[in-house]
Amino acid sequence: MKRLRGCATASGCLLIMKLDKFLKNQGAWMGGGGDSDIVISSRVRLARNLRDETFPGRASDEQRLKIWGRLKPVLASLAAMDPSVSLYMGDLSDLDRMILFERHLISRELTVPRAGQGVVIRQDERAAIMVNEEDHLRLQALRPGLMLQNAWECVDEMDSRIEEMVPYAFSEKLGYLTSCPTNVGTGMRASVMLHLPGLVFMEEVGPVIKGLNKIGLTVRGLWGEGTEAVGNMFQVSNQITLGDCEKEIVSHLQTIVEEVVEHEQNARLRLMESREHVVLDYVGRALGILSNAHILASKEALGLLSGLRLGIEMGILKDFNRQTVDDLLVSAQPAHLQVIEKAELAPEERDRARAELIRKRLARRRNRKRSKNE
Amino acid sequence: MKRLRGCATASGCLLIMKLDKFLKNQGAWMGGGGDSDIVISSRVRLARNLRDETFPGRASDEQRLKIWGRLKPVLASLAAMDPSVSLYMGDLSDLDRMILFERHLISRELTVPRAGQGVVIRQDERAAIMVNEEDHLRLQALRPGLMLQNAWECVDEMDSRIEEMVPYAFSEKLGYLTSCPTNVGTGMRASVMLHLPGLVFMEEVGPVIKGLNKIGLTVRGLWGEGTEAVGNMFQVSNQITLGDCEKEIVSHLQTIVEEVVEHEQNARLRLMESREHVVLDYVGRALGILSNAHILASKEALGLLSGLRLGIEMGILKDFNRQTVDDLLVSAQPAHLQVIEKAELAPEERDRARAELIRKRLARRRNRKRSKNE
Repeated sequence: MKRLRGCATASGCLLIMKLDKFLKNQGAWMGGGGDSDIVISSRVRLARNLRDETFPGRASDEQRLKIWGRLKPVLASLAAMDPSVSLYMGDLSDLDRMILFERHLISRELTVPRAGQGVVIRQDERAAIMVNEEDHLRLQALRPGLMLQNAWECVDEMDSRIEEMVPYAFSEKLGYLTSCPTNVGTGMRASVMLHLPGLVFMEEVGPVIKGLNKIGLTVRGLWGEGTEAVGNMFQVSNQITLGDCEKEIVSHLQTIVEEVVEHEQNARLRLMESREHVVLDYVGRALGILSNAHILASKEALGLLSGLRLGIEMGILKDFNRQTVDDLLVSAQPAHLQVIEKAELAPEERDRARAELIRKRLARRRNRKRSKNE
Repeated sequence: MKRLRGCATASGCLLIMKLDKFLKNQGAWMGGGGDSDIVISSRVRLARNLRDETFPGRASDEQRLKIWGRLKPVLASLAAMDPSVSLYMGDLSDLDRMILFERHLISRELTVPRAGQGVVIRQDERAAIMVNEEDHLRLQALRPGLMLQNAWECVDEMDSRIEEMVPYAFSEKLGYLTSCPTNVGTGMRASVMLHLPGLVFMEEVGPVIKGLNKIGLTVRGLWGEGTEAVGNMFQVSNQITLGDCEKEIVSHLQTIVEEVVEHEQNARLRLMESREHVVLDYVGRALGILSNAHILASKEALGLLSGLRLGIEMGILKDFNRQTVDDLLVSAQPAHLQVIEKAELAPEERDRARAELIRKRLARRRNRKRSKNE
């Protein structure tokens, strides 16, 4: 275990301080304050590019640096971003970038940065704009629970303000132009993160995913494209960006998600009716292992935390609330763990630190609840 | 779930009452009062047959009934058995017989009884004599911990008294004659039940077993011949009954067992030095699952209780003592569970009842410890 020696560079020092602010938040992506059991978070992102500028994939380092220099002040000036933090990826440590990635504020691409890549983040983490990812601009709004409309309004407002200041690459025929043809048109992807242990348990999640695919929705794991659904968490998003208007896409997704939520609620009810002991056992074991293990790999922890969340939401576990679980889902991630421990940790050290963090948090929560009841 | 309706027969009723007495004991085989961490129990048994009587395997029902009628008063009159209970297998319910089997008082053969099979048991369960099992007589003495010498003296004393009253099948050349040639000679099998999680963990139990086999000892699982070592419990016994005298066999086994105990202690120490977190994790998970699961199959429960026992013996778990674990190892068995629940339980009902029993006992134990400390 190597202690983190403050920071490597002067700017790094500042950044660690800036990141510290984030670490006190819960992050918008992980339910922070959301009131929906099943929809963890909502997200809308827009892909935009500047007119007459080479797209990031084909641009030289110089061109990309110029783009960051030009866009950074524009983004920081947006009222919808106030107060914001502007972070140039090249100034950050690997760990800093992983923290941002784990908080869903940058994509995996930006964790191994190229010239000119940066992000401007609203301090409450509800909005973030990446520069020189696949496109010049990736605007995203994140909201806890099912708040697609609200997230859409946020990015739409930022998009309009930016467009007043810089000209976008736009075709009358196709709409907004993007690096990847799958984004051409609206450039929009709206998505929700769903927690579906009931459907997984009842072995009904397969048919549900098939049905969603049939009506033009994509289902992915916790970390988007190509990832599996650990912790029973599924990301559902629109596939089509061409033809439909943004409002329609958002309201269509909203309607469908409400249906999936109903399916999940229904599955949980049927589960309790037909296999109550199996649920009690699943939830009980999750709590038992999380409260007592001394080694916990990331994936196992996610699965067990999903069980804990289910137990809380179904009223089986009274000593805990969803907030406890959601805090842990964020802080038990590798980079977060290392910042909390103030040390660079090898994988097996992380598994131990993760188990210790979870054990202590759950014990504290339980004791607080107990002393309240006494 | 079918409630047990008292008992089927008048004699059954009496027997349930008799068995109730047993259920209040912990049984001699499961460490009751023993002071050794690693040696759970010691057992010595003698196989004997009556002269000029057909051996049980070839005897008619009538002949076997005659043998039981002849031997029962002899056995009940032994001072070493006082006070005793005489049980004729045919009078017992399946459940009653399973209770006796789970307490290591009769062999599996007697759970599906033939004519003339019975057992006389000393009420503290430290001695039991089966009639018409493989041989006319199977005398056994059970002791908690490493008490081979004491167990040997007990069966030797009973054997001498019986021989004064009935003539044994004996050959000057071969010694005592038995149904199976492996028992001819002394007719004695001395064995100990060892709990070896340290050696299993360090992957050293294989070489140890090989070593024991080389010097003429047999290693078996919890239930003797042909069973696997669930719960890290191993039965070590002498193979040879011909040539050596009983005292030599017993003292040889005692010496060897002391060596194995040293190996196990050593393995535990090295384990804590080299892989402390793995042990803490193993013990923690065992406690976590046992305290919170709602479904526990017999084999999983045994494995987890072994983990708990290890944690207690290594001073990792301070809220529990070995007695709690050993009680559970007895009462979490299928027949015991059904008697405790006063109901006939299907296998899945047993798994639930087992989980509930363990959960409640551990919670009670922990609360008692807590309130003591406050």
